[in-house]
Amino acid sequence: MLKWLGVNKKKQKEDEIFDSVRSGLQSMYKQRLLPLERDFKANQFYAPLLTDGDFASKPMVMLLGQYSTGKTTFIKHFLEREYPGLRIGPEPTTDRFIAVMDGAHDQVIPGNAAVVDPTKAFSQLSNFGNNFLARFEVSVMPSPALKGITLIDTPGVLSGNKQTSRGYDFEGVIKWFGDQSDLILLIFDAHKLDISDEFRRCIQALRGNDTKIRILLNKADMVNTQQLMRVYGALMWSLGKVIPTPEVARVYIGSFWDQPLQNDENRKLFEAEANDLYTDIQLLPRNAAVRKLNDFIKRARLAKTHCYLLSYLRKQMPSVFGKQQKQKQLIQNLDGVYRALAQEHSLPLGDFPPIQLVQDKLAQFDFSKLPKLDHKRIELLDEMLSHQIPNLMKLIPAEERQTEEALPE
Amino acid sequence: MLKWLGVNKKKQKEDEIFDSVRSGLQSMYKQRLLPLERDFKANQFYAPLLTDGDFASKPMVMLLGQYSTGKTTFIKHFLEREYPGLRIGPEPTTDRFIAVMDGAHDQVIPGNAAVVDPTKAFSQLSNFGNNFLARFEVSVMPSPALKGITLIDTPGVLSGNKQTSRGYDFEGVIKWFGDQSDLILLIFDAHKLDISDEFRRCIQALRGNDTKIRILLNKADMVNTQQLMRVYGALMWSLGKVIPTPEVARVYIGSFWDQPLQNDENRKLFEAEANDLYTDIQLLPRNAAVRKLNDFIKRARLAKTHCYLLSYLRKQMPSVFGKQQKQKQLIQNLDGVYRALAQEHSLPLGDFPPIQLVQDKLAQFDFSKLPKLDHKRIELLDEMLSHQIPNLMKLIPAEERQTEEALPE
Ligand SMILES: Nc1ncnc2c1ncn2[C@@H]1O[C@H](COP(=O)(O)OP(=O)(O)OP(=O)(O)O)[C@@H](O)[C@H]1O
Ligand SMILES: Nc1ncnc2c1ncn2[C@@H]1O[C@H](COP(=O)(O)OP(=O)(O)OP(=O)(O)O)[C@@H](O)[C@H]1O
Ligand SMILES: [Mg+2]
Ligand SMILES: [Mg+2]
Repeated sequence: MLKWLGVNKKKQKEDEIFDSVRSGLQSMYKQRLLPLERDFKANQFYAPLLTDGDFASKPMVMLLGQYSTGKTTFIKHFLEREYPGLRIGPEPTTDRFIAVMDGAHDQVIPGNAAVVDPTKAFSQLSNFGNNFLARFEVSVMPSPALKGITLIDTPGVLSGNKQTSRGYDFEGVIKWFGDQSDLILLIFDAHKLDISDEFRRCIQALRGNDTKIRILLNKADMVNTQQLMRVYGALMWSLGKVIPTPEVARVYIGSFWDQPLQNDENRKLFEAEANDLYTDIQLLPRNAAVRKLNDFIKRARLAKTHCYLLSYLRKQMPSVFGKQQKQKQLIQNLDGVYRALAQEHSLPLGDFPPIQLVQDKLAQFDFSKLPKLDHKRIELLDEMLSHQIPNLMKLIPAEERQTEEALPE
Repeated sequence: MLKWLGVNKKKQKEDEIFDSVRSGLQSMYKQRLLPLERDFKANQFYAPLLTDGDFASKPMVMLLGQYSTGKTTFIKHFLEREYPGLRIGPEPTTDRFIAVMDGAHDQVIPGNAAVVDPTKAFSQLSNFGNNFLARFEVSVMPSPALKGITLIDTPGVLSGNKQTSRGYDFEGVIKWFGDQSDLILLIFDAHKLDISDEFRRCIQALRGNDTKIRILLNKADMVNTQQLMRVYGALMWSLGKVIPTPEVARVYIGSFWDQPLQNDENRKLFEAEANDLYTDIQLLPRNAAVRKLNDFIKRARLAKTHCYLLSYLRKQMPSVFGKQQKQKQLIQNLDGVYRALAQEHSLPLGDFPPIQLVQDKLAQFDFSKLPKLDHKRIELLDEMLSHQIPNLMKLIPAEERQTEEALPE
């Protein structure tokens, strides 16, 4: 896969775009958004404050599948070398979650060390406990293929009821990585199709991330064409029952390693499919940049209404007596408050947070302790939304399918 | 498709097997089973009494699909000629249900006439009313391909919300034909995949007949291989959601008419798929014979327990007073009655009808009016089960996949 990366200037540009957007957002966040979010306790209402680690992370691609479907082999093929700590074999081999990332030299960072590293986005993983951290590591290596993305190798799901307890919340971990990922590759073995109950539960744990899911039907050269059709049909039939969306997940059919095809009747198809997959992965940084921008704008607009809302509530509070009574009254009439504020500051009602959520949070919140809202700070936020962000956006050229450049060799 | 039928002696033998089993069952039924069922009112408890029409029917194959997917063209290709009344076109053309059957000469029998013909199995269709009967006909023609089966062509399902009311219970009719059929072919157009809401409802109306369903992905040569994969995947994804069984319906991929392939990359696959389909259709009479035998045995064993049961209940009744009281008591204790009878006559408990159903029916049944059970008649039934039926069964040779003989040309 690196063969075409080498000559591919565009790929490099894509990675740079992502990097510029990422660092641009990071400095805007620190200067204009974070201070407001912190002072008005937005993190007590919505998402946690963002750390450097959150900005450090590259788009992630998680590989998921039953054991021995070829997840680790795919990564080796994709990188054109083994990552530090890699193990491949016909029995269940990979026994941990491994984040494969770009870095200056080969290194394996154990889980406990990885989650305290502020330049990496794994700190939340410490919530899964020591049993999990013993089964997590970061594998660092220099690779052009990792300039724009991070790969997550995972332990194979066992078949049938063979499952022994893993000692940690496997589906929870899958869900966490799924939430962070930009692409989730479910890998199946055409030669030995199997969707165990645990794997079904893993897929269900990915609910909400359905649009990130892609299917990889691997080892497709190991069966004849009619058998391949039966397996492929059976796979889609079953997945359609597990994944609730009417939109069909994209499937890439082929054999994703560096060995010659066993049955090459479908060589043309496999090559076209691999080409599509690599192109889609190549476009990830750009798409991730667009998504990050989008999320950032949503976050900034929410923060703005939040500040107006809380500073308004604060102003309404009596200075001495009847605080509790007044607070109760304000919370009950939040609906009216929203409409008044929307009109006063020309805010779209759609930017306001869900009433129910805010009511619940406010009930245990003392808003007399908040600072005054400095309107200068809101102006700076507005300026960011109307100028800085559009400038960042200009860095991302309109999408064009880069089929020519992406062709292998 | 007839090309290989012509040289195929085995096909002829298959059809003869079905015919012998059919007529054998018919005469056994009339002589030994029907009189018992009639005298002990089995039809008031379970299925209706069988008529000559029920025995006359050949295995049926129903074709179902959106309009213009190629249902009528498939039939023409299969028969290697047009059936009387056939219409093919790119707009919705077939506007009625057409049973295409073997006969001495070409003839179209309108619906109203067809349902009163006792030699045909369509009498129950009169329940769907005149609006339907105006949209039903039987098309008769001499054809070796129809010696063993009857084909049901159907009006194409319209897409989207274009549905105008048909004036009769379309899904009800589909369900009826589905119940009678031995094979249900759902035809899809690879070039224009569409599963409208009405078609979804039709598929749902086939619930209970899921194992009869096969999928035909037609016009597969009109798209390139990658597109075909996407369409096929999307089809299975959607069908998996509509058809509740975990078993995957068999799909036959190809172009089922006599024109040359537009894109022949997958010629080998299409030929193998067509071959499988024709072989499966060819095996229908044999499988239908096995099924009919099986149903018949079940029916006979049920009739036997039924007669024992009702004659026992009759004997328990007081001759003059307290009839109602006694009847109630017997019904309540049916469980005990089952066990007593099972022991006395060495009947397997599994042969007895569901208690709840029998209790419901008995509540409005006057069993003092039943005849005495003549044990000679049960002996004749036993003799039928232990000798006549095994003899019929010997007519059906063990199944062997007839791939060689079935190859086209
Ligand atoms: N495309 C392929 N075609 C045929 N065999 C393959 C292919 N890819 C991998 N294999 C073989 O399948 C086996 C399992 O490979 P690998 O260890 O990469 O799978 P895995 O999904 O990472 O398994 P685990 O879940 O146990 O880590 C190995 O023997 C490997 O050589
Ligand atoms: N295998 C095929 N490949 C390409 N075109 C086909 C194929 N089979 C049929 N067609 C074309 O598709 C159109 C519809 O065919 P046909 O009338 O047989 O469909 P139908 O399913 O019976 O439609 P309706 O539901 O309206 O009766 C016709 O123009 C026919 O020539
Ligand atoms: Mg592995
Ligand atoms: Mg038609």
